[in-house]
Amino acid sequence: MGQAFVEILPTRLDLLRRNYLVEPKVVAIADSSGAAINPGGLDLGLAIKTKRQKGKIALYPKFGRSDISGVEVLDQVDADVAIEVTPTNVIDAEPGLSHMLKAIEMGDHLVTSNKGPFALAFSKIVDAAEKQGVELRYNGTVGGATPIVSLAKRCLAGNTVLSVRGVLNATTNYILTRMTKEDLTLERALASAQSLGIAETDPTYDIDGIDTACKIVILANAIMNRKVSYRDVEEITGISGIKREEVEEAKEKGFAIKLIGTVGDEALRVRPERVAFTSPLCVDEMLNSVILETDLAKEITIIGRGAGPTETASTILNDLIDVIRTAMVRR
Amino acid sequence: MGQAFVEILPTRLDLLRRNYLVEPKVVAIADSSGAAINPGGLDLGLAIKTKRQKGKIALYPKFGRSDISGVEVLDQVDADVAIEVTPTNVIDAEPGLSHMLKAIEMGDHLVTSNKGPFALAFSKIVDAAEKQGVELRYNGTVGGATPIVSLAKRCLAGNTVLSVRGVLNATTNYILTRMTKEDLTLERALASAQSLGIAETDPTYDIDGIDTACKIVILANAIMNRKVSYRDVEEITGISGIKREEVEEAKEKGFAIKLIGTVGDEALRVRPERVAFTSPLCVDEMLNSVILETDLAKEITIIGRGAGPTETASTILNDLIDVIRTAMVRR
Repeated sequence: MGQAFVEILPTRLDLLRRNYLVEPKVVAIADSSGAAINPGGLDLGLAIKTKRQKGKIALYPKFGRSDISGVEVLDQVDADVAIEVTPTNVIDAEPGLSHMLKAIEMGDHLVTSNKGPFALAFSKIVDAAEKQGVELRYNGTVGGATPIVSLAKRCLAGNTVLSVRGVLNATTNYILTRMTKEDLTLERALASAQSLGIAETDPTYDIDGIDTACKIVILANAIMNRKVSYRDVEEITGISGIKREEVEEAKEKGFAIKLIGTVGDEALRVRPERVAFTSPLCVDEMLNSVILETDLAKEITIIGRGAGPTETASTILNDLIDVIRTAMVRR
Repeated sequence: MGQAFVEILPTRLDLLRRNYLVEPKVVAIADSSGAAINPGGLDLGLAIKTKRQKGKIALYPKFGRSDISGVEVLDQVDADVAIEVTPTNVIDAEPGLSHMLKAIEMGDHLVTSNKGPFALAFSKIVDAAEKQGVELRYNGTVGGATPIVSLAKRCLAGNTVLSVRGVLNATTNYILTRMTKEDLTLERALASAQSLGIAETDPTYDIDGIDTACKIVILANAIMNRKVSYRDVEEITGISGIKREEVEEAKEKGFAIKLIGTVGDEALRVRPERVAFTSPLCVDEMLNSVILETDLAKEITIIGRGAGPTETASTILNDLIDVIRTAMVRR
């Protein structure tokens, strides 16, 4: 996803210049191998080529270094914005959490798609950002290409969100779609998803509902002002118990089985539920769909692609532009 | 809708104080009878009561005046934000257009739900606002409670919108839903809508697709940078020719007939089309649904209530808050 973003960014330079009068420069890129750092700006084409061909950004010509960690990069580099896209870790949120707190400490605005730190330590990050006066955008943590957090916080700012209900995991939705459309068993649908790279070799994180649980925790905090953490999710039931017969029976009655995350009056909950084929929640394949119930606008539904490197990179870019517009454009 | 907004505003004072440190004061309210003006702030409860019981805001005690027009009010009153909610007029856009241009000329930020001026003179309004350096928000012109313009412009700012396709008129969608669900003729479904106050006594504006055409013109300008006007809509076919048999035949095949507005590669078009029951465009009753096709995020769909005083007042409020956040909150 980081690579997808580095590929997209150069295609938006005109837009950034024209609309926001900024000329972004990437001064550092870090991965687990080390970093490439150049205060004068890295060559993004060369960065992509280095990563693709050699697998390590530390091997970037001249400016590559293998003796430095992500936190050290953030500490040493003078940047306006940090983009954190390391993989989600729901055990201790690292290394993402340390990256985020260091970036904020350094006064960098932060854009991220890393769910772990927000699912485990939402208030810690938000409070740190507020204290430092930096902007924080994390639409990429929920919904892939779908800007759910901004929709609620920015576009519906006069409304109170009363509940959230959604299909938030693309992998399980792909599997359930195959089971519904082709009458496959879970095992066969999962194998098909794995062969396409849609499901991981260890699919537990998606299949068991952990990913969906992280996302509803983030939405509960971000758009409903709940102070909850992953531990507060009352029920997390994944799709591993779903039988072909159940799916068929639901189908005959006009329903699909979907993995639904809910933030209601009280409980946060993840479990498979029947959804009518005609419901806006009944989206197929890799789509996500979320219904925000609000006090004035009532129900607002947003649907979009829930995963994929380009899709998430798109959201990182949207968020970066929002940071630029909010904090960096002088009127 | 103006009344609904005046009723909602007092319920959001805490939110405005807490989140944006502002204390809004309504210094003038105008209708076709005249205006109530008090630089110290009007009593909104009394304003509602006056309008409900006597039908004329000019009869507001002490501060009511019948000798003044909307444009004169805007000219004489010192305000930060003007909210224009007069009815849409697609002949010459008045009195809305004059109100808007006067508000902008006076340096007021502008929030509006009035489609006419934007469908007929989009660039004129936007250019004037830009020249004066005032903020302009018009989510209320399209989609009722659904913040379509902001979703595209703010939340998807890194994306280019390639096409727009949507159900944008709540009245015709209500009628088509009744025809589909209850096998009614158009005449009977329309009569039912009229008896519920959903369709006007003269329903031409909705039924003939004029309202939908205005909305796609606004979306084409606002989110696709097209320089088009109402006159540029290539086809405007309403629903008056829809026969019960057609609806039934579509239904048997799993489709509903919906009035669809499209902004494609070239043409702007309004016409009834078949939509699969399982499509996110296939929404019922008073809902609106819009699919934005974008270059990076691909298809993003938003669904929400397409009409109603509270729904549109909700959008006016969201837009007002966005103006406050953008232009009036000092960091």
